[in-house]
Amino acid sequence: VKLRIRERPLRVPGFRFAGVACGIKKSGRLDLALIHSEVPAAVAGVFTRNRVKAAPVVLAARHVRRGRARTVVINSGNANACTGAAGMRVALAACRHAGLALDVAPSDVVPCSTGKIGVLLPRARLLDGISAATRALSPDGLWRAAHAMRTTDAFPKVVSLQMRIAGRRVTLAGLAKGAGMIAPDVATLLVCVLTDAAVSAPALRRLLRPAVAASFNAITVDGDTSTNDAVLVLANGIAGNAPLVPESADGRRFAAALAAVMGELAEMVVADGEGATKRARIAVTGARSDAAARRVARAVAESQLVKTALYGADPNWGRIVCAAGYAGVPLRAERLSVRVGGVPVLRRGVPASPAIVRRAARAMRADRVPIVVDLGTGGRGSATITTSDLSSAYVRFNSAYST
Amino acid sequence: VKLRIRERPLRVPGFRFAGVACGIKKSGRLDLALIHSEVPAAVAGVFTRNRVKAAPVVLAARHVRRGRARTVVINSGNANACTGAAGMRVALAACRHAGLALDVAPSDVVPCSTGKIGVLLPRARLLDGISAATRALSPDGLWRAAHAMRTTDAFPKVVSLQMRIAGRRVTLAGLAKGAGMIAPDVATLLVCVLTDAAVSAPALRRLLRPAVAASFNAITVDGDTSTNDAVLVLANGIAGNAPLVPESADGRRFAAALAAVMGELAEMVVADGEGATKRARIAVTGARSDAAARRVARAVAESQLVKTALYGADPNWGRIVCAAGYAGVPLRAERLSVRVGGVPVLRRGVPASPAIVRRAARAMRADRVPIVVDLGTGGRGSATITTSDLSSAYVRFNSAYST
Repeated sequence: VKLRIRERPLRVPGFRFAGVACGIKKSGRLDLALIHSEVPAAVAGVFTRNRVKAAPVVLAARHVRRGRARTVVINSGNANACTGAAGMRVALAACRHAGLALDVAPSDVVPCSTGKIGVLLPRARLLDGISAATRALSPDGLWRAAHAMRTTDAFPKVVSLQMRIAGRRVTLAGLAKGAGMIAPDVATLLVCVLTDAAVSAPALRRLLRPAVAASFNAITVDGDTSTNDAVLVLANGIAGNAPLVPESADGRRFAAALAAVMGELAEMVVADGEGATKRARIAVTGARSDAAARRVARAVAESQLVKTALYGADPNWGRIVCAAGYAGVPLRAERLSVRVGGVPVLRRGVPASPAIVRRAARAMRADRVPIVVDLGTGGRGSATITTSDLSSAYVRFNSAYST
Repeated sequence: VKLRIRERPLRVPGFRFAGVACGIKKSGRLDLALIHSEVPAAVAGVFTRNRVKAAPVVLAARHVRRGRARTVVINSGNANACTGAAGMRVALAACRHAGLALDVAPSDVVPCSTGKIGVLLPRARLLDGISAATRALSPDGLWRAAHAMRTTDAFPKVVSLQMRIAGRRVTLAGLAKGAGMIAPDVATLLVCVLTDAAVSAPALRRLLRPAVAASFNAITVDGDTSTNDAVLVLANGIAGNAPLVPESADGRRFAAALAAVMGELAEMVVADGEGATKRARIAVTGARSDAAARRVARAVAESQLVKTALYGADPNWGRIVCAAGYAGVPLRAERLSVRVGGVPVLRRGVPASPAIVRRAARAMRADRVPIVVDLGTGGRGSATITTSDLSSAYVRFNSAYST
């Protein structure tokens, strides 16, 4: 199975897409995406754990719980978060309006919003936008829909692949938006994966959890978990395969394909991290448990001092070890080993020579810097988190944004 | 009781001080501080909770546990952390060498180091420095000792006060260093408070805990807890007061004085936060418990998005509410109220008008920006954490530092 990161029109049988500008963004850029399945699709979703949930997230979770959807409405430029009862009425109106226009039940519509918090989503513009998007729906509109989801994203994120399931050709395509407010649990973003495979909603739920754990729950840009995160998968069954059994060989291949699409989208989100100039994959090994490894990986990945050292291509392993030390996991300094860009800068507590550290510094000038922290506990626990560097551009961007 | 932030020579009866340059810093700047009491002093200390503890921290904690000290040796420019058995031997040698020079037991010497992690502390320079500092000890050397503690600090941090205890005049003086790797539990730094009051070691321990909780455990610059944090209090009893009883009226006054000295030092550390252009005091009220309030305050204080908005004087309360939402504390968006610079930008979930938000933006241009988040749970839990903004200078500084 080969991933394709396509810019050319890509079709997912039975799905139509649109991206329009309806004036929610003052810039006049695309700000409303519509995704519609010709037939009812099975749906599963994962939503933000932030206690402050945007109105569309509350409503989307309620609709997705039923296991069936036809339509996804996504607006950018306004998060519809912290907007109280009025915000919920607008989100409901979006579902009803799309339902009327497309002749589906309002509960078959999944609403998503992303953008500024605390500003009421303009109802008339949103509904007019849905009408326009309904007219614009096209099997070739996927790329435009991905464009319309963007807020601070430098580029739209689309990944697809095709595979055979029991003799039938099946397509998976994923769209994502996200660049800031990215943290594990769930990385701050909207993700929508569409497939024409036949998969039941319960099977889709079982497949989604591990795929999210290995992708959007394993990246960080700024450690801020947003109010609006949503990851959706819709499967409309148009491919005509016998419903997929997750535990079968085909089920495992499909699971791997879903994980690959979501993993690549997650990597694209980190690559597009606000102000990011490079990515580091923090792998922690030799921990007593995967959970312990994950705590250490997250502490290292979110350390401002590690992230600025990454930006400066400085193999300052002391900052890495220091972050590991405050992760709340028992460890011993004299057992720690650290590799930066493949170069061993610390081996069981013994620092490398200056010549080796200089080699690590050269390796850190690359776009991607693998960092491996081995805790040396004798345990087999491991975890990986991908992070971006912290640059002057991040600060410039986020101190100038909004208001 | 009035705090004095003094630059002029200040004396604490019975204590002598020195600051010398011994070549640990390549720049030739002061890098070794010595503090010595003419008589045995009671001592109490709080040390980093980082699992990776520098050799001097391990040794200092062991010596302080005995409740008695005469001498504090502090070097800057090298943290003596992640230096294995060799690092421990250097820390022990420093205690023995200072003990011989000053005719005290090695266990009466408290060693502290701060600076780069993972580089062996040069033994000969350190010991020569201790010899030179011993010769330079003077009752007027406090300011010079504070200078010698600095690493990335823009200025030395010294606070003092005098008060009367049972008719006797008592002096408290505090020295601190710290600007980066500052997080609660304990804020990354070295702090030494000296007093001529007579206080037993157990009493000193009881007084120290709440003073640290309200000062160094309530600030953050970058959320990184260092390997070398140590807060020490030495009381040599030269004032001749009857030993202080913490529960007495004098005990409470002394506790308030200690808290004031440490609180002011903590504020100075945040003001000197790397790249900081301003400070925000994040107060969380209306929580179910103080612990819940503290979690929310810390999430807001450490949010990169809040800190960059602070730098940009942007009253983006959505980022504050979002951070509160992922603090892991139950809360409801429609009950939240937020004040920025005294201006109510959100009242029980209802956003303020643009005119009011503009007033908040003006208030954010000040050096100090109070931010109040009321959770509206009906509970009385509250907490305060002081944070600095995240500026382009922070990134520039920390991506260029070291190696």
